[in-house]
Amino acid sequence: MRYLEVDQQGVVFNMWYLGYFDEAMAYFLDDGGLPYSDLLGSGLDVQLVHSEIDWRSSLRFGDEAWVDVTLEHSGTTSFGLRFDVSAGAQTVAIGRTVYVVVATDGSGKRPIPPRLAAALGPAGGEG
Amino acid sequence: MRYLEVDQQGVVFNMWYLGYFDEAMAYFLDDGGLPYSDLLGSGLDVQLVHSEIDWRSSLRFGDEAWVDVTLEHSGTTSFGLRFDVSAGAQTVAIGRTVYVVVATDGSGKRPIPPRLAAALGPAGGEG
Amino acid sequence: MRYLEVDQQGVVFNMWYLGYFDEAMAYFLDDGGLPYSDLLGSGLDVQLVHSEIDWRSSLRFGDEAWVDVTLEHSGTTSFGLRFDVSAGAQTVAIGRTVYVVVATDGSGKRPIPPRLAAALGPAGGEG
Amino acid sequence: MRYLEVDQQGVVFNMWYLGYFDEAMAYFLDDGGLPYSDLLGSGLDVQLVHSEIDWRSSLRFGDEAWVDVTLEHSGTTSFGLRFDVSAGAQTVAIGRTVYVVVATDGSGKRPIPPRLAAALGPAGGEG
Repeated sequence: MRYLEVDQQGVVFNMWYLGYFDEAMAYFLDDGGLPYSDLLGSGLDVQLVHSEIDWRSSLRFGDEAWVDVTLEHSGTTSFGLRFDVSAGAQTVAIGRTVYVVVATDGSGKRPIPPRLAAALGPAGGEG
Repeated sequence: MRYLEVDQQGVVFNMWYLGYFDEAMAYFLDDGGLPYSDLLGSGLDVQLVHSEIDWRSSLRFGDEAWVDVTLEHSGTTSFGLRFDVSAGAQTVAIGRTVYVVVATDGSGKRPIPPRLAAALGPAGGEG
Repeated sequence: MRYLEVDQQGVVFNMWYLGYFDEAMAYFLDDGGLPYSDLLGSGLDVQLVHSEIDWRSSLRFGDEAWVDVTLEHSGTTSFGLRFDVSAGAQTVAIGRTVYVVVATDGSGKRPIPPRLAAALGPAGGEG
Repeated sequence: MRYLEVDQQGVVFNMWYLGYFDEAMAYFLDDGGLPYSDLLGSGLDVQLVHSEIDWRSSLRFGDEAWVDVTLEHSGTTSFGLRFDVSAGAQTVAIGRTVYVVVATDGSGKRPIPPRLAAALGPAGGEG
């Protein structure tokens, strides 16, 4: 986390978690063999249609946080990821996001291409 | 919205909606007669424990957006707000957040004080 | 300012001032008769090549801040603005930024067009 | 850099550089043997009083950027850092910031303590 993300309460302000999830999603795809730049290069992008976050604790400046990513479901044009944010042994937050695949030219939804499906792996697998 | 909130896709990046909700929450309390600074001054603050957002559309730079706030539920130590984000006649996103009241000295949860309950008004009312 | 911009020190984190200047620049052009969207629509944009900020004080959550914009200089392809940030009678910060006019198609610098020159007004004038 | 920092022009929006400098400053002190949390723990903090940035190029999403930190000057209560931001062989931006040391209890400026002076090293040295 960055100092600028910590608010007057001394904890990371809520919106930055969505920034972390975006970054973690890109790492997850990259780990699966699909750099995000390759996805864009193929004329496709992902767009967030749903997010939810449950906080059980908070992050303070200097905390080492981890984000684990899991594929929860995958359909024809959308997929859902789960993000477990932890610091040490403590669960800080659990997030869920649903993305649709869209064309970068603005022409709308697209089916999940084989290379993205391969990068996502089977639902329920660990990221 | 600000230019800096618009990403490479040409739309407001998802995390900024949580920033808008935070700002809208403060206006909502202020409209109800409780400036946020008064809440802090009384030794209390609100902390987000849950958020969810469903996007139906997106915001482009220059769009005029509105955020309507409604109280969805109110309990002993927590309350839930609904945020309807629209641009013109179009619904852009619907958000829901749940807050708990906490002491600013870090000593934990507190019951919703009468002045905050008054500011929130009855559940289901318009903000 | 927004709550999310206030850091652990209880003051607006430095980077947000550049966000305020960007917003104030767009208002300044708009006041001069050139909405930023019209500039973009004409195939031109402005790009920051220099910024400097001197802080004399800071902003706390709830402070009412004002940003006054003045044109400091204007050349063939660039112009410089000065931003005076104040809260009440107090000067909080003084910023200076230099912009170049560029084509939105990525083909590089362009001369300041007549409509932008008119919107900027004479150097030394008040925004 | 993060996707959310990239604006509609496809480049990192200017204000995020001040965020990078803040992060690089903390790493610089840490490399010199003074974790930022130790500085805070000793009742001291640093506050930005001046910043300037000259951009020669820009950063696109996926670019690998480096920030080199050098101590430019060091006085009784203030010090100045220089930040060279590069991507590959290209200089992207050069930043300069001046900090004063302040007490975390709000009682104002303090002399640079020995441990911070040691962490900063001699002026002109490489970070």
